[in-house]
Amino acid sequence: MTLLNPSVVLNKIDEIVIEDRPVPKIEDPHYVKIAIKKTGICGSDVHYYVHGCCGSFVVTAPMVLGHESAGEVVEVGSAVKTLKVGDRVACEPGIPSRYSAEYKSGNYNLDPDMAFAATPPYDGTLCRYYLLPEDYCVKLPDHVTLEEGALVEPLSVGVHSCRLADVKFGDKLVVFGAGPVGLLVAAVGKAFGATDVLIVDIVEDKLQFAKKLGVATHIYNSSGDRGKSLTETKELHKAAFGDQLATVAIEATGNEYCIASALHLLAPKGRYVQVGMGKENLGLFPMGIVGEKELTIKGCFRYSVGDYETAVGLIASGKVQVKELVTHRFKFEQAIEAYEVVKSGKAIKAIIDGPE
Amino acid sequence: MTLLNPSVVLNKIDEIVIEDRPVPKIEDPHYVKIAIKKTGICGSDVHYYVHGCCGSFVVTAPMVLGHESAGEVVEVGSAVKTLKVGDRVACEPGIPSRYSAEYKSGNYNLDPDMAFAATPPYDGTLCRYYLLPEDYCVKLPDHVTLEEGALVEPLSVGVHSCRLADVKFGDKLVVFGAGPVGLLVAAVGKAFGATDVLIVDIVEDKLQFAKKLGVATHIYNSSGDRGKSLTETKELHKAAFGDQLATVAIEATGNEYCIASALHLLAPKGRYVQVGMGKENLGLFPMGIVGEKELTIKGCFRYSVGDYETAVGLIASGKVQVKELVTHRFKFEQAIEAYEVVKSGKAIKAIIDGPE
Amino acid sequence: MTLLNPSVVLNKIDEIVIEDRPVPKIEDPHYVKIAIKKTGICGSDVHYYVHGCCGSFVVTAPMVLGHESAGEVVEVGSAVKTLKVGDRVACEPGIPSRYSAEYKSGNYNLDPDMAFAATPPYDGTLCRYYLLPEDYCVKLPDHVTLEEGALVEPLSVGVHSCRLADVKFGDKLVVFGAGPVGLLVAAVGKAFGATDVLIVDIVEDKLQFAKKLGVATHIYNSSGDRGKSLTETKELHKAAFGDQLATVAIEATGNEYCIASALHLLAPKGRYVQVGMGKENLGLFPMGIVGEKELTIKGCFRYSVGDYETAVGLIASGKVQVKELVTHRFKFEQAIEAYEVVKSGKAIKAIIDGPE
Amino acid sequence: MTLLNPSVVLNKIDEIVIEDRPVPKIEDPHYVKIAIKKTGICGSDVHYYVHGCCGSFVVTAPMVLGHESAGEVVEVGSAVKTLKVGDRVACEPGIPSRYSAEYKSGNYNLDPDMAFAATPPYDGTLCRYYLLPEDYCVKLPDHVTLEEGALVEPLSVGVHSCRLADVKFGDKLVVFGAGPVGLLVAAVGKAFGATDVLIVDIVEDKLQFAKKLGVATHIYNSSGDRGKSLTETKELHKAAFGDQLATVAIEATGNEYCIASALHLLAPKGRYVQVGMGKENLGLFPMGIVGEKELTIKGCFRYSVGDYETAVGLIASGKVQVKELVTHRFKFEQAIEAYEVVKSGKAIKAIIDGPE
Ligand SMILES: NC(=O)c1ccc[n+]([C@@H]2O[C@H](COP(=O)([O-])OP(=O)(O)OC[C@H]3O[C@@H](n4cnc5c(N)ncnc54)[C@H](O)[C@@H]3O)[C@@H](O)[C@H]2O)c1
Ligand SMILES: NC(=O)c1ccc[n+]([C@@H]2O[C@H](COP(=O)([O-])OP(=O)(O)OC[C@H]3O[C@@H](n4cnc5c(N)ncnc54)[C@H](O)[C@@H]3O)[C@@H](O)[C@H]2O)c1
Ligand SMILES: NC(=O)c1ccc[n+]([C@@H]2O[C@H](COP(=O)([O-])OP(=O)(O)OC[C@H]3O[C@@H](n4cnc5c(N)ncnc54)[C@H](O)[C@@H]3O)[C@@H](O)[C@H]2O)c1
Ligand SMILES: NC(=O)c1ccc[n+]([C@@H]2O[C@H](COP(=O)([O-])OP(=O)(O)OC[C@H]3O[C@@H](n4cnc5c(N)ncnc54)[C@H](O)[C@@H]3O)[C@@H](O)[C@H]2O)c1
Ligand SMILES: [Zn+2]
Ligand SMILES: [Zn+2]
Ligand SMILES: [Zn+2]
Ligand SMILES: [Zn+2]
Repeated sequence: MTLLNPSVVLNKIDEIVIEDRPVPKIEDPHYVKIAIKKTGICGSDVHYYVHGCCGSFVVTAPMVLGHESAGEVVEVGSAVKTLKVGDRVACEPGIPSRYSAEYKSGNYNLDPDMAFAATPPYDGTLCRYYLLPEDYCVKLPDHVTLEEGALVEPLSVGVHSCRLADVKFGDKLVVFGAGPVGLLVAAVGKAFGATDVLIVDIVEDKLQFAKKLGVATHIYNSSGDRGKSLTETKELHKAAFGDQLATVAIEATGNEYCIASALHLLAPKGRYVQVGMGKENLGLFPMGIVGEKELTIKGCFRYSVGDYETAVGLIASGKVQVKELVTHRFKFEQAIEAYEVVKSGKAIKAIIDGPE
Repeated sequence: MTLLNPSVVLNKIDEIVIEDRPVPKIEDPHYVKIAIKKTGICGSDVHYYVHGCCGSFVVTAPMVLGHESAGEVVEVGSAVKTLKVGDRVACEPGIPSRYSAEYKSGNYNLDPDMAFAATPPYDGTLCRYYLLPEDYCVKLPDHVTLEEGALVEPLSVGVHSCRLADVKFGDKLVVFGAGPVGLLVAAVGKAFGATDVLIVDIVEDKLQFAKKLGVATHIYNSSGDRGKSLTETKELHKAAFGDQLATVAIEATGNEYCIASALHLLAPKGRYVQVGMGKENLGLFPMGIVGEKELTIKGCFRYSVGDYETAVGLIASGKVQVKELVTHRFKFEQAIEAYEVVKSGKAIKAIIDGPE
Repeated sequence: MTLLNPSVVLNKIDEIVIEDRPVPKIEDPHYVKIAIKKTGICGSDVHYYVHGCCGSFVVTAPMVLGHESAGEVVEVGSAVKTLKVGDRVACEPGIPSRYSAEYKSGNYNLDPDMAFAATPPYDGTLCRYYLLPEDYCVKLPDHVTLEEGALVEPLSVGVHSCRLADVKFGDKLVVFGAGPVGLLVAAVGKAFGATDVLIVDIVEDKLQFAKKLGVATHIYNSSGDRGKSLTETKELHKAAFGDQLATVAIEATGNEYCIASALHLLAPKGRYVQVGMGKENLGLFPMGIVGEKELTIKGCFRYSVGDYETAVGLIASGKVQVKELVTHRFKFEQAIEAYEVVKSGKAIKAIIDGPE
Repeated sequence: MTLLNPSVVLNKIDEIVIEDRPVPKIEDPHYVKIAIKKTGICGSDVHYYVHGCCGSFVVTAPMVLGHESAGEVVEVGSAVKTLKVGDRVACEPGIPSRYSAEYKSGNYNLDPDMAFAATPPYDGTLCRYYLLPEDYCVKLPDHVTLEEGALVEPLSVGVHSCRLADVKFGDKLVVFGAGPVGLLVAAVGKAFGATDVLIVDIVEDKLQFAKKLGVATHIYNSSGDRGKSLTETKELHKAAFGDQLATVAIEATGNEYCIASALHLLAPKGRYVQVGMGKENLGLFPMGIVGEKELTIKGCFRYSVGDYETAVGLIASGKVQVKELVTHRFKFEQAIEAYEVVKSGKAIKAIIDGPE
């Protein structure tokens, strides 16, 4: 028996199954139907798999996983103007309400009524057919692959954070964390013009990978400092930019010592963006230097107007190389295995094919 | 015996004396000599008096106190163009290096070589004659008194913080702290257009004073919550702006529970400025909501380009009433008594006359 | 015979009639039905009446006039959350597409698919019943009258221009034009903190009115200079702010000599906003000084996110007094007469009541 | 007889001589003495040579020419901290007053008391020894040549304009003019992230050169349109970015038709910067579309805080290749010949060696 819309469903903690779901029908004329071709696995997916929750979101009913997808348009609604059947697109997974104040003011990522894929109660994209409004699909140029298209989602986080930090030519950027998000933040920072990029992590392999990828001009392994405050670490200061302080810091671990260190590494009027999600309440925060140096700190939540387009543009122009991040590839049928591999921490980025 | 330049000198902890100092001579042609007429006492002066230090600054040698002064020009250097003998001016107490990168880029308050009055090793303004570059003196219009001129210094902190927060018409502003700084922050916030201003303190008298002054549209006494986290206090939320969240929060206590509460009271994309100086490292900081709401947090250090002029303008236009803050007045000879009164916590703002 | 939805219809140049139109039905659940109570007459309405066109918009079929209205909610769609029957609201006349890039990025006023009331081919608001999405209706506080509500539309132009110009405390503002738009620009500029406001016009009565209204601190009658370049007028410079140059200029006549003069009056780094609509191509423009002084010039088109809310807030707070602008009032049945009066130039603002 | 400080002096129109000038002595301890090694010839130098004036500046006394120089530090004042003898530096030719309001607020380029090299009455840099404050010398990294150092001056104009325009990744940039300034604007625009760069000129050779240099992704020869308004030229629109409009336009010819065309090519909310200096008063300016599209127009005057440093950084990073612009090189003794060649229009950039 062939499944009409095979979907990767998280039933509950530790239980993923592939099952059939009804093929969705276009009702809103601004929507298109997409045949999903490539989907990346994200830390949050694994969190749901292992813990049944992510932040304040709790899985209480079976939910289709996946939110980092690219695919092919197979049907278009009657009002669609910019896409046609056959177009290859990167899929934005969060659809806000067009009536919210946040949407209207250019901050749709903060819409409280956001329907975000694979975030309870909304199903994700790991299925054959998925519906999206046309303006939440970004067309891929011919020379950009669908696999690259699946990486547009985490890349957009990098874009959003670098925009909030206003990274530009000449900036000295420190990134904490060399996971996929930290690497992509660094890559965007470099593409936006940062002339020096220091990446800090506690895993040497990840730092070496960052170096190989060409996104770090400097690396620092802070594992020797783990457990005690990094805020005073002289070595880290030296590893940074010699005599000079960073102009921008973007934090992508969520760890409170990283946060404190990052703020210490900044020059007066330095800009800091918090991407990593760690403890709700930190037990350490160096407010003294925030005041003395008149630092600016910004929270960063997903991505917003134009970030997906910019991410596709960065890939298309060759300024950011995302495909090197893909360390594992799986068929749709191997989805459960894929989750196990990511859970084990072996992969940087694993990609699952769409159903055939 | 008449003193030529009588000065209020802090010799060491708990020891203030009035003694003669040499009359300063104009050497740099851009400088003017000012006869100091009115000087406000600041929390930092008292801190030096009681603890011998303030933040990282330690008194190791006798130092003239005072940095909130206004006076009359009695002599002008040969290059001075904008002032003449007899002009009444508010005195800016911090003189940066004209060669620093911070000065050049419009942030002179962050110049590491700043010479700030009554901050070791620099003498303060509580004396008969004081020298300043002409552009660090702001002329007072005829209808502004010298006493008001002495209040320009703390008012400039309010101006600087409201500028960093970009307070404008329609903002809903929360201010933590109803000390002189919090009151002046609120007053500037209102003058800049905030339509609602909530002031939070733990001392009922201070809140009532804020109300009487007309700078608070809402007040909240958080003393019942003292000692436990305010971050979840439902009452405070209600006391704020009903259903609505604050668009701007300015913190003027330095207390970590206040900081956390202020961040909780902010709407998505809310702006927060840290004026209060408390613990160098906070033991509590709600980074989770900073991310989720994409808040912006800025440090605030003294005041910078144009803030003194704006402060004088606010007083001159009647938009800010500073004279109501003055609860105590002393002759120059009573300076030691004045410091005792402020130390006791009885005054909001005490003013010392210049020597006759 | 009673008309169900009496409407003021412009059939063609010089021909306005009152006729019945079908009562509109709520189809989109986010819409509300409003009983129109007060409508202001705008220069553009008169332009359609006299010339059959306004800018590039040409009346080719009968069109209901009016776009400056306030009314009462008489029915709400099923998805409406913020309004209920009986609420009194100011009506925003331009409804953009929720799918446009401009809407998404926070600039809905620039949406090319905007449906703007009384702008061909869209009917206006001078009728008994009018439909609007709930978020394009701004609720009036109890103490704000419906007549004031009708003035929110032109006031929003003032708000938008002062926002683009970033008018704030201490600015020295020059406004060219003392028509309703110029007066409201000046009023908002003052409310936003401009300490000095110079209004320039060629009609002494209008300048005196501006003075009486309290929105001008300085006035200048430039009629003696009419016809020749004002750019060099020494008198105008003196009438401005003495020795000082303006920090902001907002132009509300469209006249090219006014534009040139305004740019000449600005200080280095001055900000200029073009509100007035005159010749498509100017025959004079002082680009030299734009470069030398590094001026910033911005175009200004209607109003956008938050401007209507701010305008209501300005009226509610008493910071802007709009009701003094109303010089003429008419019953719905007198609409044609009302247009004649406005056409004659006798009125500053004429208001037509809704049908009984 | 050896000259001590041989200098290229413009005596009057059409008369350049090489003569000896006194060797300058360091008096201000913040100054350094530089042995000038390479100097570029600028359009303004030629203008003084041919017309005896440039803009409002008129040569009334003999004046040393040259303002685009690099050299070697041969002596340092006693307060100098960042430079030492032997350092190779790019020389900033305009020294503002440290006491001006413009300097203090971060806009030293607008200081009315600016002393700018080779701008009457100030002598230029075409000599053996020249004095500068240390912070107006930017150190060249070892791999950057002195010739490249001489090109930092015009490159800084490109940097300043692209900063004012806030050019960033993804921008579609139109540059009018393929002279040295236009080429460098385009080069910086590309380095700052513009993904598409259209250069418009009327000389095919210059356009081809731009293409070869790699700074233009699109070129357009508008000579066919010369003499009539370009504003409606359909071909130009097509040559631009297909269906898409430009997000940024930077004008580097000063021609009024170019200005109008540039504004027409911009998308809503587009940003425009005026670099070219043409007629003081334009006889054509499309204000209509400035309003409708809410464009932002900024004047651009020389360069300011950080621009020189950024220009050196762009060269050092390889993001901008300036040396390809140098088409002619001359010994110091050939200076007069050099001016003749530039006057003839044959050179893109000519460089004169320092005296031996
Ligand atoms: N703000 C947002 O919208 C957003 C979006 C996506 C991900 N995130 C967050 O970004 C963070 C990074 O995501 P990821 O997928 O790259 O995660 P990851 O777990 O793959 O990477 C985190 C990296 O941080 C390193 N690290 C951990 N503790 C450290 C320490 N004390 N010092 C230095 N390095 C340390 C780890 O070794 C790892 O390389 C996560 O917290 C995630 O929740 C935020
Ligand atoms: N950033 C700057 O440049 C700058 C300049 C001047 C002052 N300051 C700082 O601003 C702060 C205020 O200065 P001030 O002179 O008004 O001080 P102050 O001591 O007179 O006032 C502080 C106020 O905070 C209140 N408060 C204390 N703990 C509280 C709590 N837990 N909850 C609510 N209210 C609480 C007190 O009752 C008091 O009214 C100080 O920390 C001072 O160091 C900073
Ligand atoms: N940008 C927008 O979105 C927008 C919105 C509404 C109105 N407008 C425009 O704003 C302008 C003003 O609107 P209004 O309703 O107040 O018009 P109005 O005709 O009532 O007022 C114009 C005023 O300008 C004065 N004036 C005319 N020529 C002058 C000159 N040479 N020098 C000095 N003053 C001169 C007139 O005496 C009159 O008082 C109009 O051009 C209108 O089209 C623009
Ligand atoms: N704003 C500043 O601070 C600043 C600094 C330096 C130079 N400038 C100005 O920048 C401009 C360019 O300087 P440059 O040294 O490159 O000059 P240039 O004369 O070498 O180059 C000008 C270019 O514009 C082209 N051009 C002329 N008319 C044209 C037209 N109608 N259409 C299209 N192209 C046309 C010419 O063919 C030439 O290639 C000049 O006006 C100069 O005064 C301004
Ligand atoms: Zn993800
Ligand atoms: Zn103080
Ligand atoms: Zn109108
Ligand atoms: Zn030059």
